[in-house]
Amino acid sequence: MIRVAILGATGYTARELLELLLRHPEVEVTALGTRQEDRPHLANVHPALRGRIDLCLENLSPAEVAERADCVFGCLPHGASAEVIAELLDNDCRVIDFSADYRLNDPDVYEKWYQVKHPDPKRMGKTAYGLPELFRDQIRGADLVANPGCYPTAAILALAPLLRAGKVNPQGIVIDAKSGVTGAGRSPKAHLHFPEINENLMPYGVGTHRHTPEIDQILSTWAEVETNVVFTPHLIPMDRGELITAYADVTPGTTENQLRETLQEFYKDEPFVRIVDHLPGTKDVAHTNFCDVTVRVVGSKAVIIGAIDNLIKGASGAAVQNFNVVYGFKETMALL
Amino acid sequence: MIRVAILGATGYTARELLELLLRHPEVEVTALGTRQEDRPHLANVHPALRGRIDLCLENLSPAEVAERADCVFGCLPHGASAEVIAELLDNDCRVIDFSADYRLNDPDVYEKWYQVKHPDPKRMGKTAYGLPELFRDQIRGADLVANPGCYPTAAILALAPLLRAGKVNPQGIVIDAKSGVTGAGRSPKAHLHFPEINENLMPYGVGTHRHTPEIDQILSTWAEVETNVVFTPHLIPMDRGELITAYADVTPGTTENQLRETLQEFYKDEPFVRIVDHLPGTKDVAHTNFCDVTVRVVGSKAVIIGAIDNLIKGASGAAVQNFNVVYGFKETMALL
Amino acid sequence: MIRVAILGATGYTARELLELLLRHPEVEVTALGTRQEDRPHLANVHPALRGRIDLCLENLSPAEVAERADCVFGCLPHGASAEVIAELLDNDCRVIDFSADYRLNDPDVYEKWYQVKHPDPKRMGKTAYGLPELFRDQIRGADLVANPGCYPTAAILALAPLLRAGKVNPQGIVIDAKSGVTGAGRSPKAHLHFPEINENLMPYGVGTHRHTPEIDQILSTWAEVETNVVFTPHLIPMDRGELITAYADVTPGTTENQLRETLQEFYKDEPFVRIVDHLPGTKDVAHTNFCDVTVRVVGSKAVIIGAIDNLIKGASGAAVQNFNVVYGFKETMALL
Amino acid sequence: MIRVAILGATGYTARELLELLLRHPEVEVTALGTRQEDRPHLANVHPALRGRIDLCLENLSPAEVAERADCVFGCLPHGASAEVIAELLDNDCRVIDFSADYRLNDPDVYEKWYQVKHPDPKRMGKTAYGLPELFRDQIRGADLVANPGCYPTAAILALAPLLRAGKVNPQGIVIDAKSGVTGAGRSPKAHLHFPEINENLMPYGVGTHRHTPEIDQILSTWAEVETNVVFTPHLIPMDRGELITAYADVTPGTTENQLRETLQEFYKDEPFVRIVDHLPGTKDVAHTNFCDVTVRVVGSKAVIIGAIDNLIKGASGAAVQNFNVVYGFKETMALL
Repeated sequence: MIRVAILGATGYTARELLELLLRHPEVEVTALGTRQEDRPHLANVHPALRGRIDLCLENLSPAEVAERADCVFGCLPHGASAEVIAELLDNDCRVIDFSADYRLNDPDVYEKWYQVKHPDPKRMGKTAYGLPELFRDQIRGADLVANPGCYPTAAILALAPLLRAGKVNPQGIVIDAKSGVTGAGRSPKAHLHFPEINENLMPYGVGTHRHTPEIDQILSTWAEVETNVVFTPHLIPMDRGELITAYADVTPGTTENQLRETLQEFYKDEPFVRIVDHLPGTKDVAHTNFCDVTVRVVGSKAVIIGAIDNLIKGASGAAVQNFNVVYGFKETMALL
Repeated sequence: MIRVAILGATGYTARELLELLLRHPEVEVTALGTRQEDRPHLANVHPALRGRIDLCLENLSPAEVAERADCVFGCLPHGASAEVIAELLDNDCRVIDFSADYRLNDPDVYEKWYQVKHPDPKRMGKTAYGLPELFRDQIRGADLVANPGCYPTAAILALAPLLRAGKVNPQGIVIDAKSGVTGAGRSPKAHLHFPEINENLMPYGVGTHRHTPEIDQILSTWAEVETNVVFTPHLIPMDRGELITAYADVTPGTTENQLRETLQEFYKDEPFVRIVDHLPGTKDVAHTNFCDVTVRVVGSKAVIIGAIDNLIKGASGAAVQNFNVVYGFKETMALL
Repeated sequence: MIRVAILGATGYTARELLELLLRHPEVEVTALGTRQEDRPHLANVHPALRGRIDLCLENLSPAEVAERADCVFGCLPHGASAEVIAELLDNDCRVIDFSADYRLNDPDVYEKWYQVKHPDPKRMGKTAYGLPELFRDQIRGADLVANPGCYPTAAILALAPLLRAGKVNPQGIVIDAKSGVTGAGRSPKAHLHFPEINENLMPYGVGTHRHTPEIDQILSTWAEVETNVVFTPHLIPMDRGELITAYADVTPGTTENQLRETLQEFYKDEPFVRIVDHLPGTKDVAHTNFCDVTVRVVGSKAVIIGAIDNLIKGASGAAVQNFNVVYGFKETMALL
Repeated sequence: MIRVAILGATGYTARELLELLLRHPEVEVTALGTRQEDRPHLANVHPALRGRIDLCLENLSPAEVAERADCVFGCLPHGASAEVIAELLDNDCRVIDFSADYRLNDPDVYEKWYQVKHPDPKRMGKTAYGLPELFRDQIRGADLVANPGCYPTAAILALAPLLRAGKVNPQGIVIDAKSGVTGAGRSPKAHLHFPEINENLMPYGVGTHRHTPEIDQILSTWAEVETNVVFTPHLIPMDRGELITAYADVTPGTTENQLRETLQEFYKDEPFVRIVDHLPGTKDVAHTNFCDVTVRVVGSKAVIIGAIDNLIKGASGAAVQNFNVVYGFKETMALL
């Protein structure tokens, strides 16, 4: 049994993670961290989990966490996350980090997009990027896995194989993304107040969203040339689900079938990527760790569509998948 | 032209009110009040109203408001409202008050349910209760109208005629109410965060909701005996719309048809109450000042159903209707 | 391994059931029945299940089903269900029936509410009613279990212990119920078209809903006196979740605490009923087999609130729970 | 007073149109057409309009309609529409047509995308395209106005001025569009069933949507070179509202400010187009005839965003605006 702790246990990703881990036969959840002081019981923080596990959330130091857990899932905000993680690693914990802190390789890029100095620059670029479909070898046995952002997950899974195969042009890629509201976290904000979101649809962060450099970093690696995607997210009046509609110029002479076959071949042994013929909706993957992908050619453009559940394949499911890869468990454990 | 001011102009009821008043041929909106200091333009507070009227929200004293306006619509919270209103009345403004401050007759009841001492007890019980269908004579020419609560509006319109006619028992009435979320205001709160409300349905304020004494006060008058309703509101994952399902023992010998006819007769000249045969939904009255009512007899109980738009007939539409009655304009002006 | 078939596999309850059964270590799903002729693959009927199990839906005779399966979950409409089930039982299949056909004891009551003659009246009243919390002994080893209706599940769990203990009056009970739309099935209908339901809230079947005699039959048994509940369901603009708000006169001298303790005592060993202090929302039980119950006393009435997921505890989860009881598996298997 | 008829009065666009026309001081609604035979009262077809106007829907011949009305709003499906309209025009009615039948200039293009032969090809290319912001002169006094599609309205308003000014490249334009579900009409369909749409988000008609040639026809005129837009619509779980996110290569040397100023200058006298700085949401324009447009430059791309209410500016509001232009009424009449 692996003893597991979750830091930042009040949020939606932590709740989803707990639901998955409670079904995992090799996991014992031993600690729940929070920066609050009042030690609330989990049942009061997440009423849905009442009766499932008898733990309180505690304000624990990294050393205290390391005593109780072999592996830590970090659901802390960027900046705060790296500080704690460095100490956990020094105490021989393994860490799967939901924050953005160890996703980017370049401290300057991090500082530009996140407006803070990185607290642990020496580890940047040396961590495993937690997308097993692309980086399984690096994840296996890793001490620290940077769990990907939700948008990057869908965008990279949809585009990387086509770029690697030279089937689409790495320049001029547009990624029009749409997400449910849980992706924005659990803190109440004016623009996330129910009547502001419900029956509404709006773009946000056009040209400024922090997932942009993350997408470019990975796609550039796979394209073997620098990409500069135009990334436009939109908020959709629903809880969960994320769909990216990517537009890229097709390499002349390439057909829709060839694009589909490239994707099918690439993912043929993957348990969680389904290349489909129909146009997928987010509900096809809701509450699952699947990413459904399809492709169409319209005029000279490939239109590639990827759908995930932002809380599962886009966060907590991916984390459990990474956990399974790190420890050598069956990759689908607790996920199917 | 009546010069009109709105105090507390940032909220949803103020926005709806403005949309109605901008269509009112006898109204000029001259001032918008807020307790914020930064004088935002209306277009930034309510983007939907951009280009409709060129006004900023201002932190105005009651005296300043009284200089600019003949009639003030008060959308301030209870307690705060009465203090301002007393001063407006002293400065010869007419006031239509959305708050609860002048709805109840008894200062002790007010203090019990609102947990504050009433700042202007001498006016309590002397104001017009702004339900024209029941109190039109008192509203005509009034200086101060207490605009009813949203739940009381639907509940009273559904029950008062049957109680007055002795067709249902005033004891043991149950009012099970359901409302969209705009009724809870525009301030973001943890339990009103989009993912907390969406795909959720929950009771709240069971036995403690402040609309209870308001309902009892008016129903007691119409029943000519004290009522003690059991009132249970529920939050529904939608913006607007309110439905009350009221249960009362039918007076022995009374048929469903007699109940329906009692309602039809009572409201036969009313422009905004529709007694219908089918079971109404809130969407039938959305964005309108209508209240749709129907009745069924099930066993020994009358089941009376009333549907309104909480922001219109439950707030801003009622306020305009009251305004029209106060000034002697056609009652439907700006409302149809 | 128990070989399991599902009849009527196109609907929402069948999809939920499959998701649960695919996690059940003692189950092998061997056949999926449909009355369609074209033998569609499950992945095309329920895209969410693509890649999970490789089966087609087939139009199978009861004899064919009985050859392939030890236990059949019937998701067929009432009337059609009993005809098939009689034949399955004659072929030594065990059956868990989602339809209403074997819930009522009295053929005349069935005919009155369902407007058809019962095709198998001799078995009526001899089947186990599938609410393990109340009828576990009858379910154990049963050949045929009548899986309860969704509304009866919540209503009975909330009320039965209080009635049995004599804490509330069995006369004059009002059950105001609210449900998400999956409860109405997967067939498109004019009044279930997205824009008719969304942002809408409406009562339906007032005094005529078929779950009424089912509730009364069970509650009468537990109250040991005939009940005649007034049952009013409402459609809520959400997928899943059901909440009943029941109103009953408190037995004089009984306190809120005594009511709560009665419920706690009754359910103290039950894995799926949680007696809570707070007012529960349906999201607390979404995607789970839990029923959350609380109680308040308001004036002379007990207000008892029960929340379930209509597709899980109100249908497919209950069916798996019954399956576990029938076969003597751990009752929570595949459900936690 | 202009006597007005509406054909195809059962749908959502007809209901919205009626709500607008009932406020129009120069209009008398004299006839409502339907292809049903049973002459239902409007109050039963659109319960929200109960008590507003006392008319039945009738199955009327074009000649009968022409006798009762000066101007006809046609809400009929394509194909059916042109046949009726030809006869109405021959009977000296003016027509504002919501269908696609008179939007395209080329019968072959029509046949390719709509899979039927056009019944009245001689009028194609000679009708006014009902986007007053671009074609006001042709609409003034016209006998037949082709009311634009909802997607083309938003897309063309956002792009035409920039293309005309040469600020963006007419080649390689991507239009990623998102719409509420009322745009799909009122007929219940499996994929529009509430639980299929709710909490879901899906693309549809990728590369095949019929609004594509309409957008290209108009944009080509304004660009003075043929465009071939890639148009991808998505269904959003909400009633109304439509947002297009258009991507076009910026002409080298052009700044974001220049793009914004081009739009501002173009629309400076338009009552219904608002060029805004913030990122607009569809709720900013819900229930209004406004189109809110903004622009950003990201890398080498212009990202142009346009938001409308698909039922108002995308259908019925545009129709009333066109009506006002045709007859020389104030263009905002009944619309503000």
